[in-house]
Amino acid sequence: MTTRALCERFGIEFPLFAFSHCRDVVAAVTNAGGFGVLGATAYTPEQLDRELSWIDEHVHGKPYGADIIVPATFEGKGEGLSRTQLADRIPMEYRDFVTDLLVAHGIEADSTPRLGGSALTGDTGRELLDVAMSHPIALIANALGVPPDYMIEAGRERGIPVAALVGAKEHAVKQVAAGVDLIVAQGTEAGGHCGEVTTLVLVPEVLDAIDGAVPVLAAGGIVTGRQMAAAVAMGADGAWTGSVWLTTEEAETASHTKQKMLTATSRDAVRSAGRTGKPSRQLKSDWTDAWLPKPGGRQPLPLPLQSMLSERVLRRIDVLADQGHPGAQQLATYFVGQGVGLMTKVKPARDVVLEFVEDYLAAAHRLGDSLT
Amino acid sequence: MTTRALCERFGIEFPLFAFSHCRDVVAAVTNAGGFGVLGATAYTPEQLDRELSWIDEHVHGKPYGADIIVPATFEGKGEGLSRTQLADRIPMEYRDFVTDLLVAHGIEADSTPRLGGSALTGDTGRELLDVAMSHPIALIANALGVPPDYMIEAGRERGIPVAALVGAKEHAVKQVAAGVDLIVAQGTEAGGHCGEVTTLVLVPEVLDAIDGAVPVLAAGGIVTGRQMAAAVAMGADGAWTGSVWLTTEEAETASHTKQKMLTATSRDAVRSAGRTGKPSRQLKSDWTDAWLPKPGGRQPLPLPLQSMLSERVLRRIDVLADQGHPGAQQLATYFVGQGVGLMTKVKPARDVVLEFVEDYLAAAHRLGDSLT
Repeated sequence: MTTRALCERFGIEFPLFAFSHCRDVVAAVTNAGGFGVLGATAYTPEQLDRELSWIDEHVHGKPYGADIIVPATFEGKGEGLSRTQLADRIPMEYRDFVTDLLVAHGIEADSTPRLGGSALTGDTGRELLDVAMSHPIALIANALGVPPDYMIEAGRERGIPVAALVGAKEHAVKQVAAGVDLIVAQGTEAGGHCGEVTTLVLVPEVLDAIDGAVPVLAAGGIVTGRQMAAAVAMGADGAWTGSVWLTTEEAETASHTKQKMLTATSRDAVRSAGRTGKPSRQLKSDWTDAWLPKPGGRQPLPLPLQSMLSERVLRRIDVLADQGHPGAQQLATYFVGQGVGLMTKVKPARDVVLEFVEDYLAAAHRLGDSLT
Repeated sequence: MTTRALCERFGIEFPLFAFSHCRDVVAAVTNAGGFGVLGATAYTPEQLDRELSWIDEHVHGKPYGADIIVPATFEGKGEGLSRTQLADRIPMEYRDFVTDLLVAHGIEADSTPRLGGSALTGDTGRELLDVAMSHPIALIANALGVPPDYMIEAGRERGIPVAALVGAKEHAVKQVAAGVDLIVAQGTEAGGHCGEVTTLVLVPEVLDAIDGAVPVLAAGGIVTGRQMAAAVAMGADGAWTGSVWLTTEEAETASHTKQKMLTATSRDAVRSAGRTGKPSRQLKSDWTDAWLPKPGGRQPLPLPLQSMLSERVLRRIDVLADQGHPGAQQLATYFVGQGVGLMTKVKPARDVVLEFVEDYLAAAHRLGDSLT
C-alpha cells in the first residue's frame, strides 16, 4: 500500500495516527486531518461510552479509533477471579516494599492494591469492545499481543479494520496470520510497552517479513514530521504516535510530570517492567529506580498484579506532586518514549499536527534535493 | 551543511562512510564512490603502516580515513604500565571464570590474558596516529569519547578533519567545543560501543543541539539505502556504517560468525559490557550470556582489562568454531548492530555500495511521491 492509498482508505489527509487517553486530543487530531485513537483500557464500559459519545459530537463524522489492551496471557486469566481475589495474589512483601518507598519519600501509605477500570479481569475487554463497536469507530487496535478472536471477528463483521502493535518481525508475521488488517511496528524507543528493536531497524524488518500483506505504520520515538518522513522513506505507510500528545495543551498529563517531560532528555525515558509487569518505557524517577533489577531488588510481578500495585499509588503521587510535595515529585513518572528529548514546548494538539505536516514536507524536499 | 556540500568537501560521490577493520572493504567502498575508514586500533604501528600503504596503492588518490580508539579514561592510563603489569590487575577469579566457561564448552584453557596491538597502553594511540598521518588520509576518527588534544591539533596542522562518535546529544556539544570537525551520531542499535538512545531520536536531538556547527553523520542500525535516506530526511548529512561490511565477500569475519550473522534477527544483537568493559552491541552467544548482569554473575572489568580477558580467547574460539568445534560455535560472537537482522546475503563490498545508492534513490522517490 502507499501512503496515499492508506489516507484514502481511512478517509484522512495525513497518515498521522495519535494515540491518547484524552478525548480532546483524539478529536483535535482527527479534526486537523490526522487520525485520533482513544486509549480505552483504563475506562469502565460506562465511562468509555461517555468519552466516545463526546468524541462523536466533536468530530462530525470524521474518522477516529479506539485502543484496548487485551493481552493473550495474564495472571488469573480464565479463572473468573474478582478484583479482590486477584489482589490477594500480590505478596505482602511487595505491598511493604511500596509502603516503605512511599514512607521514605515522606508519603503516608494508605492504599491497598487494586485495579482501576481494566480490560484485564473477567470479560471487561469484550465489554469495552462492544461499547467501542456501538460507536462509529474506524479502527480498533490491540496494543499488546495478538488480538483475541472475538476482536478480529467483530471487526470483520462490521467492516472495522483491526490494528495490532508489534515489537518484533516474528510477531508481525503472527498477527497477519491471525487476520489483523494493520500493523503498527513499534520500536524500543516508544513510550509504554515496547520490545528491544529500534524503529529504524524494526520498520524495514517488518516490511520485508510481511511483504505487503497489510499496511504498516511506524511507531516509537516519532514526535516530529521529519522522523515520520524518515519512516515513510523506509516504506512505512504512516506513523503511529503517543508521547508527543502528552505535552499538548489538551492532555490531562499531571502538571508536574508535564514539566518534567519538557526538560527531559531522551536518556530520561527508561525501559522497565516496574509499572505493569511487562517492559515499558517511562520517565525516570525514584519509582522507576526502585524497580531496577539489582541484588536485593524486587522482580516486578506479572501483569496485571504489578499495575494493581502501582497505578493507584502513582495517581496519588501525581496529585501530591502537583501540590508541591517534594518526595512525590521525585517519585512521579508516566509512560513516555525517548522522543521526550525533542518535546520542549506545550502546544495545542492541532498545532502539533500542522507542524508535523510542515516538517514532513521539508524533510521530503531535503531528501529529494540531497543528491541532485 | 547539505549532503551535497559534504560530498564536495570529502571528494566523494555518495555520503556513505564505511568503517571496517579490513583494508579490502575500505578500498572497495572508496573506489565505489563512498568513503572507507580503516579501524586501526587492533594494529601495531608497523602493521598499520603496511595496511595503509596497501590501501594507498589500491585507491589511486581517492579519499579514505582511519579510526583509532583513544578513550579519555581507562585503567592504568598515565601510569606507564607494561602490558604484563596491566594484566596483573585482572583478578584471578576472573581468569578462573573464563577458564571454567571454556572447559564447560569442551575447550582446553591455555591462554593468559594479554593485550593484542592496542592504543590503550603507553603512547600507542599517538604512535598509531603518527603512522596514519604519514599517509594521505582524508579523515581521522576517534570512536570513544572526546579525541585527545594531540589528535585535534595534528588534524588541524595537516588539514585533516577529525571525527568523533557520540551516543548522546550532551557528548556532541562537548565534542564540538573540543574542536571536532564531524560528528557521528550513533544510536544504541549500532554494533560495537553504543549508548542508549536510538538513531531515530538521537540524530534530530544532536542536530538541534549543535545547530549546524559541524556536519553530522547518522550511525546505528543503518545497513540499507532506505535507512540512510531516512537519516538524511531527518537532516543528517550522510551515514556512517559498520556492521553491513562484516558479511561482505572481502570481510575477514570468521566463517562461522559470518554464517550466524546471515541468519540472525535484530534481537540477536545484544548490548553488553562483557567484551570490552564498556557497553557494546554484539552477536548473542554463550559468551555474551555468561556476562549478563545476574545474581552471582561477574561484573565486567574496566577497559582495557576486560578486552585483555576476552579478545585473545575469542579469537581462539573463532578458529575452533571454524573447524567445527560445537562448544566454540556456541561461544563465538562478534560486534554487530541490530541491522544484522537485515543482512541475509554475502555480497562484494562494491555491490553493497551500489545497492545503497539504488535503495536510497528509491526511498527519496517514495517519500517525494507520498503526499502528491
